[in-house]
Amino acid sequence: MISGFKYIVHISEILNMFKKASQLLTMIKTERISVKSEGHGDVIDITGKVSEIVGNSKAKNGSAVIFVNGSTASVSTIEHEPNLIKDVNKALDKIAPYGQDYEHHKTWGDDNGSAHVKSTLMGPGITVPFEDGKLVLGTWQQIAVLDFDTRPRTREVVVQVIGE
Amino acid sequence: MISGFKYIVHISEILNMFKKASQLLTMIKTERISVKSEGHGDVIDITGKVSEIVGNSKAKNGSAVIFVNGSTASVSTIEHEPNLIKDVNKALDKIAPYGQDYEHHKTWGDDNGSAHVKSTLMGPGITVPFEDGKLVLGTWQQIAVLDFDTRPRTREVVVQVIGE
Amino acid sequence: MISGFKYIVHISEILNMFKKASQLLTMIKTERISVKSEGHGDVIDITGKVSEIVGNSKAKNGSAVIFVNGSTASVSTIEHEPNLIKDVNKALDKIAPYGQDYEHHKTWGDDNGSAHVKSTLMGPGITVPFEDGKLVLGTWQQIAVLDFDTRPRTREVVVQVIGE
Repeated sequence: MISGFKYIVHISEILNMFKKASQLLTMIKTERISVKSEGHGDVIDITGKVSEIVGNSKAKNGSAVIFVNGSTASVSTIEHEPNLIKDVNKALDKIAPYGQDYEHHKTWGDDNGSAHVKSTLMGPGITVPFEDGKLVLGTWQQIAVLDFDTRPRTREVVVQVIGE
Repeated sequence: MISGFKYIVHISEILNMFKKASQLLTMIKTERISVKSEGHGDVIDITGKVSEIVGNSKAKNGSAVIFVNGSTASVSTIEHEPNLIKDVNKALDKIAPYGQDYEHHKTWGDDNGSAHVKSTLMGPGITVPFEDGKLVLGTWQQIAVLDFDTRPRTREVVVQVIGE
Repeated sequence: MISGFKYIVHISEILNMFKKASQLLTMIKTERISVKSEGHGDVIDITGKVSEIVGNSKAKNGSAVIFVNGSTASVSTIEHEPNLIKDVNKALDKIAPYGQDYEHHKTWGDDNGSAHVKSTLMGPGITVPFEDGKLVLGTWQQIAVLDFDTRPRTREVVVQVIGE
């Protein structure tokens, strides 16, 4: 069974080998990016930043979980161009227009009921696979934060790489 | 190359070392939680239960995949307070009001076409990252099951921890 | 400490052991499936194909990340029957009906503004856990690609298995 040159191995050598090998196994890396937004349906392209985090992670294959902290914003994919952003907001305003007619305003005296509704409908995040260090996005498909709040905000977006 | 004290190692020792080390690597743990709901747009806060599952998992960093079994409910994040829940339901009722006017009712004689439509639009689940054993949620951001079905139900929600 | 029969181990033996053991740990496998669609709200059931990819992956527990390449389609779960598909499209058409009234059309001279809006609202993908090699879906809950584009297309859907 055992052929070739034989070593008597020091226990620390085995541990070192294990450490090196485990770097080839699945790893999880969590980063945060800061996104400045004007609110009111501002849509910010974060594809470049997410790609950079994936590229710096040493993982070749896996997924990036993108999650926005807060209950008045969302993450989705979009062809990121100004006219389509107007269309998306116009459609969402049919369901939840900005205005006074929200029960939520009675709770805190806020004016952002529409923002909460849009955020809950669209959800807080998406998961985007990558292969060979590259996100599997279409050519016209960008990753974007949609901020529905009724004032400018700095958003914290968590980008977690699960990969190998 | 080999310095220091040398061991002749038993094969089972290497395996034990490997087992211990692998517990530090990525692990996957799948739990189920049972959620009682009144249906008709009932929104149930499950943040505490998801946090507990993450906390008990021994994983420090990773993501919780939260998925509701069934095609008339969804999972999202929300500021969980009664007035906003009314607003969310009012907005969804603009797209898919409860009523008889659904083709789906012809298939089974059901009355829950509106519930199916809302569930498909919002999707079955979300993925929430955690760091140092703590979900990366905003202060006013809870994880919730939205049950759109037209009768009380007990929902099975799968919470899967992928972490290290 | 060391009892039983002792081996002097060859370094390659340890590496082989490590390789075998690591196959029991978390693995990531990325596949692509090709989906023919008629567009205009065509909803294609891909549950069988996703199940097959999970089954062939050797992973017993984990999640399947399902992501559609492109910005005019989505992935969700649905009770996949023709009448409900009509209802879902009718509801989405209330927010974003097919037609000329989209700013996006000014950008490229396209006619698929409605498709982009629906896709961004619903998001590009979902994550479905599996246990013992079986997706945790409800009986009436299928995984489907919704293609909102305004022409027939062949869609590339990425299915990534993260499991152990």
